[in-house]
Amino acid sequence: MPHMIIRGISVPQIQSISTVMISELADVCSCGTDNFMLECLPTVSISQGEICDTYPFIEVGWFERGQEIRDAYADVVTRHILSLGVPEVEIAFKVYREDSYYWNGKLI
Amino acid sequence: MPHMIIRGISVPQIQSISTVMISELADVCSCGTDNFMLECLPTVSISQGEICDTYPFIEVGWFERGQEIRDAYADVVTRHILSLGVPEVEIAFKVYREDSYYWNGKLI
Amino acid sequence: MPHMIIRGISVPQIQSISTVMISELADVCSCGTDNFMLECLPTVSISQGEICDTYPFIEVGWFERGQEIRDAYADVVTRHILSLGVPEVEIAFKVYREDSYYWNGKLI
Repeated sequence: MPHMIIRGISVPQIQSISTVMISELADVCSCGTDNFMLECLPTVSISQGEICDTYPFIEVGWFERGQEIRDAYADVVTRHILSLGVPEVEIAFKVYREDSYYWNGKLI
Repeated sequence: MPHMIIRGISVPQIQSISTVMISELADVCSCGTDNFMLECLPTVSISQGEICDTYPFIEVGWFERGQEIRDAYADVVTRHILSLGVPEVEIAFKVYREDSYYWNGKLI
Repeated sequence: MPHMIIRGISVPQIQSISTVMISELADVCSCGTDNFMLECLPTVSISQGEICDTYPFIEVGWFERGQEIRDAYADVVTRHILSLGVPEVEIAFKVYREDSYYWNGKLI
């Protein structure tokens, strides 16, 4: 954790920014870089009856860290995604409950 | 937004209903048709040790709009999905927090 | 329901444990085995700029059942996943709202 589930941005694009982006996010979160999971999720998008490009969207799953860290996190991710030439990206955060998250069967 | 992540219904099936369904959903939500994201998510389902068809399921991600609009939204989606000959479909709504949803790094 | 969306564990591995695991989970939940949806979700994970194995992660979507049943559920899933030789697995539960979950257009 944090988990980042990425839609609408290609694997090579994410590879090209991943190392620096994760390093900056680890600073924002004051945690190690090995806590992050960065996963591209393939979906097939449909508009007007046709298959179309998927809109760039990232869902971040984590424990609540407050508005200031969330804003900073979104800022880092957005900056790196836009640096790829992607014109826009949306990011939504989803909060895991601490009483509902298990590592090897134990609450963490 | 709204996002619709669709499992267990084929891409051509969704293509065949997408234009009319999105038009009706835009009426329900009083927003433009270009706000909607319709994405088919491929998963591999397992039952009794065998790979099986995925149960038709749609997750709608959006901001809270209240019970009346939610019911109407589910009604439109269900009617179009059942028109495909799909015998049953489940729909779950997930609500994004307005303090946790960013467009190009800014809360929207 | 419950839905289990599985990342980072192969389809054949899940096939090999599915029948016994679902049977035990049905006991934990006091429901029939045909309520469960077990779906493997393919994602492409990236670390240090390279494509890497996806971390074993299971998201369980259901209605709230309380800590005791949740702990028991996580325990059953963890035991079966670790029995595959997978060294670690994380499980997160996400709760559906009963006013926001529809079967064929009707709240269930």
